[in-house]
Amino acid sequence: MTEVTKWGVWQTEIEGPSDGNPFTEQWVRLKVESRNESAEVDGFYDGDGRYIARFMPSFEGEYSYELTASFLSGKKTGTFTVLPARPGNHGPVRVQNTWALAYSDGTPYISIGTTCYVWHLQSDELIEQTFETLSQSAFNKIRFCVFPKHYVYNLHEPRSYPYEGTPMDSSVLTKKNFNLFNGRAEGNDWDLKRFNPAHFRHLEKCVERLGNMGIEADIILFHPYDRWGFSLLTPEEDLLYVRYIVSRLSAYHNVWWSLANEYDLMKKSDADWLSIAHTICEKDPYRHMRSIHNCRHIYDFSRPWCTHCSIQRTDTYSTVENTDRWRDMYRKPVVMDEIAYEGDIQFGWGNITGEEMLRRFWETALRGGYPGHGETMTGYDDILWWSHGGKLHGESHKRFAFLMNILKRCPGNGLKPNEARRSDEVSAVPLERQYAGKFYLYYYSFMRPYFREFHLNDETEYEAYVLDTWEMKCDYAGTFKGEFRIDLPKKQYMGIMLIAK
Amino acid sequence: MTEVTKWGVWQTEIEGPSDGNPFTEQWVRLKVESRNESAEVDGFYDGDGRYIARFMPSFEGEYSYELTASFLSGKKTGTFTVLPARPGNHGPVRVQNTWALAYSDGTPYISIGTTCYVWHLQSDELIEQTFETLSQSAFNKIRFCVFPKHYVYNLHEPRSYPYEGTPMDSSVLTKKNFNLFNGRAEGNDWDLKRFNPAHFRHLEKCVERLGNMGIEADIILFHPYDRWGFSLLTPEEDLLYVRYIVSRLSAYHNVWWSLANEYDLMKKSDADWLSIAHTICEKDPYRHMRSIHNCRHIYDFSRPWCTHCSIQRTDTYSTVENTDRWRDMYRKPVVMDEIAYEGDIQFGWGNITGEEMLRRFWETALRGGYPGHGETMTGYDDILWWSHGGKLHGESHKRFAFLMNILKRCPGNGLKPNEARRSDEVSAVPLERQYAGKFYLYYYSFMRPYFREFHLNDETEYEAYVLDTWEMKCDYAGTFKGEFRIDLPKKQYMGIMLIAK
Repeated sequence: MTEVTKWGVWQTEIEGPSDGNPFTEQWVRLKVESRNESAEVDGFYDGDGRYIARFMPSFEGEYSYELTASFLSGKKTGTFTVLPARPGNHGPVRVQNTWALAYSDGTPYISIGTTCYVWHLQSDELIEQTFETLSQSAFNKIRFCVFPKHYVYNLHEPRSYPYEGTPMDSSVLTKKNFNLFNGRAEGNDWDLKRFNPAHFRHLEKCVERLGNMGIEADIILFHPYDRWGFSLLTPEEDLLYVRYIVSRLSAYHNVWWSLANEYDLMKKSDADWLSIAHTICEKDPYRHMRSIHNCRHIYDFSRPWCTHCSIQRTDTYSTVENTDRWRDMYRKPVVMDEIAYEGDIQFGWGNITGEEMLRRFWETALRGGYPGHGETMTGYDDILWWSHGGKLHGESHKRFAFLMNILKRCPGNGLKPNEARRSDEVSAVPLERQYAGKFYLYYYSFMRPYFREFHLNDETEYEAYVLDTWEMKCDYAGTFKGEFRIDLPKKQYMGIMLIAK
Repeated sequence: MTEVTKWGVWQTEIEGPSDGNPFTEQWVRLKVESRNESAEVDGFYDGDGRYIARFMPSFEGEYSYELTASFLSGKKTGTFTVLPARPGNHGPVRVQNTWALAYSDGTPYISIGTTCYVWHLQSDELIEQTFETLSQSAFNKIRFCVFPKHYVYNLHEPRSYPYEGTPMDSSVLTKKNFNLFNGRAEGNDWDLKRFNPAHFRHLEKCVERLGNMGIEADIILFHPYDRWGFSLLTPEEDLLYVRYIVSRLSAYHNVWWSLANEYDLMKKSDADWLSIAHTICEKDPYRHMRSIHNCRHIYDFSRPWCTHCSIQRTDTYSTVENTDRWRDMYRKPVVMDEIAYEGDIQFGWGNITGEEMLRRFWETALRGGYPGHGETMTGYDDILWWSHGGKLHGESHKRFAFLMNILKRCPGNGLKPNEARRSDEVSAVPLERQYAGKFYLYYYSFMRPYFREFHLNDETEYEAYVLDTWEMKCDYAGTFKGEFRIDLPKKQYMGIMLIAK
């Protein structure tokens, strides 16, 4: 390739040996240089004697490169040109102003996530349906796994495996006995030192397409819901895999690294996780977003390798209501990646109503965090969005674009909790100090006050809007100054927005 | 009186001086004796030179008495006969088995409370309406104040005052300025050493009528919502008042002493409260239920004078979900006296839905506590059940009888949290150990599982019932043993009851 767009994927290929184990016995290394940046990244073996090295440039202009490899005497060198970014590609997401997120070009990133653990390992048809659903949604982040998932509603075979080998016979599995097959079951035969490039090529295609749609790919590297043994790799196997996937995927601008779904259910030590984290830090020169997701015990997100908090609620009742506390505690963006799923399955984590899911979204956002969705509705041939993607059948997702549009009304990037908030409301103000007094959001959650009184100051005129977050209405209520009162219908899920004139 | 029923009010009157200040300068003392009990109680001045002493006998049979008084040379003596209790009078409520409540005759008391702070200080017509409403309800406890209440929606004059004197001119009050008149306002002129007997006679009539209806009167002695200065009595005035009301009211079997509504908003010290509590302990020979109710800081209910916890929720979100923790912490019955009110007023404590109120009732009950209701619906000429009584306009109260009937299915007296409960359910089992394994209640709150699986043991056959707590349906779902599954509709507020055959 001699031309690439800024934050696009530039890659170069080279033929090499296919005998022995190219994944462990060979290496490829790419050095890239331009006026504005220089980097060194690992290449990877893509099968059939083909080696690839990838790079994501962060600047326009001329770049030169130098490829070395274990099987190459000397170097392969060349140049390429970086053109302006493709419209819609704003670069990787970064932390901005301690608690907010923004794309590399400075555009605010208001994260509205969803979770579909193994959507990309389903049939072509189902995958297309997922893309179609996503394209019509407000979602700009999707959380999913590299490894296949084994769990109730997830007993069938994935479309491919990450390693060479053969799986156990899954015809013996039932909804009743699946628990007995957790972890490394009998009958699997994998070479955990030889990856299956097709599995990763497909993953990349999905990541790339998501990127073109403006959707961040929050890639879960490890998870405990397993029958193949992929949750029980040795520390050496962990790092071999991490290096492989980082070398393949880190050049995609929209990648986030989620070390685990429910790390605390896995048989890895704290040192194992740190070792994985440090390998990513070392091997990913683009510093993609990095975090780790809990089941019962929230990770210590104050650790430097974590760019943000990725939280699963740990209490059935008080969930996203802790967002502001976590924000204060960790002083990093708080992404509420799992706040229970809209659905009706047998488990409490997957059977809240659309109303409650939407309520949790608003609570999260107004407490200065970023919410994440998931859906587990039964009655659709056991295809659940939460794992398989497909179609959405719930009610909450239809209302996230409205939330996003309201959040965009806030000047600057990001909101923070309003310190003057009363105990019977959530309220947010602009995160950036220069906009103090310019914008106020109030949300009344499950309560239904028929009016609220305000007295912010005596000088500023505010345009007031009554928000019906469920009906997605933003009604102008008048312009006010000094002491004033806003009437509300006697309904749940209402809010008020005040914008300084 | 020569005859009285067990747990009824026996009283004797005597003429005495009306000059000077009979409330502080005179005293009357009654000694009572029978084969089974003996007691000494204070009498009180009822105005117009009339002094009264009251006694509630706890046993049938012959009693003798002896009255002494400051103005009497010698004693007035006599006898009376105690007949069997009036049907429906089970005696004062007591603590049973650490966490449960029972009447003195052993009948379980499943408390379903409500709050109407000053219902008895309204017009005759409104009071009659309140009695009518109560008679058609499941409520068996009502919380209310002795002193009038000053607050928004509570600006008008009460029908009477507890002291001799005249109030401030309340025509100056508005919904806006009422806050300025908190505590002791200008323009009041009270003699805080002279009670108004008519105020207390009316209170007694109300307590008596409640008693005849099987409703406990949870009498709030002090509260901060005041413009007359009754919240700012001196410690000496506090005790004069406490001794007066205890001498008047403690002979009513259905009295509970609530030292305060929101004690922590008042200008009394810990020592003041203890002094009040100890005076009640000393002067009330019947040991009526005693507690104190908080605003922000829960009282230390481990103190010996408290018979039970009387709790206002301190968090907007996580409220009755703490019932079991308080139960463990204090090892006393937990009465959740204020868990927000069903309504639509401007304040978060008074605008939850009927669904949410009912949910909090079930959560409380299944966590081993006793729930309390209140209602603040606007649109009815500013008559709100929470303060004024009258009619109920909400939805939750209609569904408490169903809850009560389900709770009565539990063998023995009282429930306790099921230690085997999962995090996505609340579950209760009989409090009394002898009934272990005989009865299980499960409640799924705001969640909506479409089925739940059970495996309690391999031997017992259980009749299973699906409970729709909102629709008040208890549907037989079959008889099961060993491992089994119960299907549920995909709805909120469902439960399951299992009864051993």
